[in-house]
Formats: sequence, structure tokens, C-alpha cells
Amino acid sequence: MKVIVTAGGTTEKIDDVRGINNFSTGRLGSLIADEFASSGITEVIYIHGLHAHMPDNSAVRSIGVESARDLAYQLEKLIKVERISVVVHSMAVSDYFANGVITDEQVDEYIQKKNPTTSSFWRLFSKNETKGKKMSSSSEDIIVRLSKNPKIISKIKLWDPNVLLVGFKLLVNVKKEELLSVAKKTLSKNDCQFVLANDKSLISGDNHQAILLNSEGIVEEYKTKQAIAQGIVKAVLKEKEK
Amino acid sequence: MKVIVTAGGTTEKIDDVRGINNFSTGRLGSLIADEFASSGITEVIYIHGLHAHMPDNSAVRSIGVESARDLAYQLEKLIKVERISVVVHSMAVSDYFANGVITDEQVDEYIQKKNPTTSSFWRLFSKNETKGKKMSSSSEDIIVRLSKNPKIISKIKLWDPNVLLVGFKLLVNVKKEELLSVAKKTLSKNDCQFVLANDKSLISGDNHQAILLNSEGIVEEYKTKQAIAQGIVKAVLKEKEK
Repeated sequence: MKVIVTAGGTTEKIDDVRGINNFSTGRLGSLIADEFASSGITEVIYIHGLHAHMPDNSAVRSIGVESARDLAYQLEKLIKVERISVVVHSMAVSDYFANGVITDEQVDEYIQKKNPTTSSFWRLFSKNETKGKKMSSSSEDIIVRLSKNPKIISKIKLWDPNVLLVGFKLLVNVKKEELLSVAKKTLSKNDCQFVLANDKSLISGDNHQAILLNSEGIVEEYKTKQAIAQGIVKAVLKEKEK
Repeated sequence: MKVIVTAGGTTEKIDDVRGINNFSTGRLGSLIADEFASSGITEVIYIHGLHAHMPDNSAVRSIGVESARDLAYQLEKLIKVERISVVVHSMAVSDYFANGVITDEQVDEYIQKKNPTTSSFWRLFSKNETKGKKMSSSSEDIIVRLSKNPKIISKIKLWDPNVLLVGFKLLVNVKKEELLSVAKKTLSKNDCQFVLANDKSLISGDNHQAILLNSEGIVEEYKTKQAIAQGIVKAVLKEKEK
């Protein structure tokens, strides 16, 4: 049985020296990978962001990725080519990629035009190419356009409908009912078998409150990263035995 | 003698789960800190970004910082309170901080107004508070306003004119003459004793081409991170003996 665990955060380059990061230590993902490895799974593949914690178990195969696009490329290749049974997608993937930068001078000039239109506004960004460069830092203000990345989690079952998929939903400082309701939508929309719902305001080091859901409701609640890792592996293995 | 080495990159938060990072491994800074420590300097203080390499020498005192503002706070406090002889400022500090986010819907609505003005445009950003929250990811496009951070390097001699200051100038893929000319401006503008000029396209792992300058011209050229660290420490100690 082959299991993929994604962990850490993506980085979307603005130019050659700056990027937008999703904060995630990858600590929980590394524990999940270790827990799978020590449970006797044949192969655990750990796809991780640039600064993610790494699993202790040296049998885990690791693949580093930078952007959401890199992650999609690696996941699609693995899922289509190798026979992957389980994907635990804990990585904090950027919803957006950086799609051009304009300066305050360009904004001024644009607004003073007689007939500014939405399309002409967005066109301003496409003229300023920053790839393989360092954007100028002479302007007082600049604005960065961020455009939507495709949702990777929604692709996984299209690549292989037999994958058992565990999604993650992280919100910040919301009521438990709201968190559960949003997590349930993530579950059904992406055809996940499980979703781990958590709130950043209830995470502090190894103390990590979280709720595992399936289509029937709450499976289990946890208070530490270690308990989450053990709980997810237990739930996945039980589901695979069915 | 007390020496500060800054290293790694800053992170400027966009919201509670995303930020803008300056890419820098901190590897060179960690080598410089180690080189100072093994040269018998009384105290080496290493101020570093979130994911920076750490010095091997356990005698180095380390202080972690996140944003440019954090760095300025720590540096000012140390320089004004403790007697700092040398600051080697290798950290990649963000020129900008994230100053609000607006959605494509807000841009559309704004542009369709009869009399859009520059000030009303910038005002849009101040209404969207993302601190302690996670911005919505429902929009196809969003734009992030980045506003200028104060230049920390220009403050150091104002905090203490007796500090020996080593600045760094990193450009990407420029001619050597341009790099030297920009580095010379950094030297005089910030009253540095030395500036290390380097080009990101000539850095790959430990291979790291760089030129050390002072007000008289080129001091030395290097090809590896180890040689840069040794060269900077040698030049600084020689200058302090004068």
C-alpha cells in the first residue's frame, strides 16, 4: 500500500527574491508520515514545502515542492503512474499565485485617464514582468495582483477515484459550528473520506485541537498533534480494511 | 567586543496564514557569525529570520525576528543599550509591508464610479482589515497593497555613529559595473565601512561570487561562502585595529 502525505506550506514567487508563503511548519504532516511508516505501510511518500519539518523515519520517501503548481504536477504524476491508495493532504496550499506588480505611479497615471475600464486596469499588471528579476523598490507603494490557483484537492479523485482522501480545513478564530459546517462542505465538494477541521487560534506548538469528520459526522476529537497523527492513521487503516 | 550579524529573510504578514518572504537561507550569515566566534570575539549576536540556518558555534547568542519592524526594534535596542562595535547586516529585509487587500469585485465597483481619484483608490485598502484573520479566498483575483518599510540600514549610524557597519547589496543578473556602482551608492548613502556586492545569478550553494568594497574601491573578491565569511571577518578586524 502506498500513502502520500503532503505537508508544510507553498511559496508563490513574486520575483526572484520575494514570494508569498503559506505559514505551516509541516510538523503535523511529518508526524502523520512517521505514524504511517511505523504502522507497516509499504511506502510512505512525503511531499513537502521548502521549510517543512521532515519525518524522523528514514524509510519515508520525500519530495520537495515550491509552488501550488509544483505540488499539482508531482501529485498528478504519482497518482496516475504509481498506484496510490491514500492521500493525506495537510499542506497549506496558496489559493493564489502572484500575477504581476504595478507601482503607485502607474496607479496614478491610470486613474487620471478619462475612461478607465476594469480590463484596462488588469492589463497594467501583465506588462510588468518580474520573472528572473528583482522588482524595483523605488516606489512608495506597489500593488501585487494575486490570481486564483486551481484547487488541487478537487482534482485528486478525478486523477484516481479509488484514492482514499483525507482533506484538511484550517480557519482562524471561528465558532465550532462554523468550522464544522465549512469542513463538511470541503468533505462533500472534494469527495473526501475524512476531513480534519482545525482552528489556528487553538493551535500552539504540540497543543492542537482538531476534529476528524467523515460523511456521517464527527469521528473523533483531538488535543495534540501526536493524537491527531495517530487518529488519522487509525481511521484510514480501519477504512481500508472495510 | 560585541558583534551583530543579521541573516536570513524577513516575513511580512498579509493575514494570519500568509506572508511575503524574502528568500535567503541565512547560510552565509551563519558562517560569518561562526567565523567571528572562532576569531575570539567576546560576544557574537545572531539576529535571524524564521527559517535561517543557525551558526554551529553554541557561544553565539541568537535572536529570532519575523518582520522588518521586529528587526528594527531588536537592532535599535541592542545598539542603544549594549555597546555594539560591529554590525554585519546580511539579512534580506523586505522593502515593503502588506498594507491591505482588496478583491476584484471592489476594483470593478471602484472603476465604475464617476470620479475615481488616487486617494479614494488607496482608501479602499484601509477598510479591509486582515490582521488576526484569514482573508477570504472566494475572489478570482485580489490585489495586495505593499507600502515602503523604513530602510533599517540607514538608521544604524544614527543609533550609534561608532558602529563599524558592513552592508550587503544583492542584485539579480546585472553587469559587474552596474553591481559595483549600485553597491558604492549603498556604501556612501548608509555610511558603511564595507559593502559586499553580489549577484543572485552567480550564487549556487556554496559557490558564491562576491566583491567586498570600501570607500577606496575593491578590497577583495571571493568565490565561495566560506571565503566571503573569512574575508569579511579579516577586513573588519583589520579595520578595528586601526
